[in-house]
Amino acid sequence: MVTCREVIARQAFDRALRNELQATIHDARKRAAKIKEPSELWELESWLTERRRDINRWYDYRYSVLQIVFAHLIRDGHLKNDDLTGLRPESLS
Amino acid sequence: MVTCREVIARQAFDRALRNELQATIHDARKRAAKIKEPSELWELESWLTERRRDINRWYDYRYSVLQIVFAHLIRDGHLKNDDLTGLRPESLS
Repeated sequence: MVTCREVIARQAFDRALRNELQATIHDARKRAAKIKEPSELWELESWLTERRRDINRWYDYRYSVLQIVFAHLIRDGHLKNDDLTGLRPESLS
Repeated sequence: MVTCREVIARQAFDRALRNELQATIHDARKRAAKIKEPSELWELESWLTERRRDINRWYDYRYSVLQIVFAHLIRDGHLKNDDLTGLRPESLS
């Protein structure tokens, strides 16, 4: 049975991931539109590789690491404390 | 001493490479502008990786492989026979 806390955690996680991906799409378009030199093509490639790795590393929905994932997402501004209202206080510490 | 044939070969090679890179910049901008889904970000990354590898593989200015490089560039429309006027006929065969 899924608890209310699990629903809140999953929704907050999915929202943060969706926002992060949308921001990456926005940045990728902006970076690509500015490309003038060939070297900037390969800078875009490296940046995309780094974004993919960072997102895969950070958005890890295993219960064993979820507290630290949420703590980092709050620290980096991808989640607000309000998004996690209803979770146990110790989950946010 | 640099011969006339070497100058012609170098200029044709540089022109083809410049055109290929400009076309890649143009395509990258178009692809990025159309991105709507996150999966398309990683498709752009893969495409850039493939373009970088293809360009590095094909634009190889070693005399030992230059004939085959020019033959491929002509076959794929990146060079015209006219670009190589002045080179020995056997270089183009």
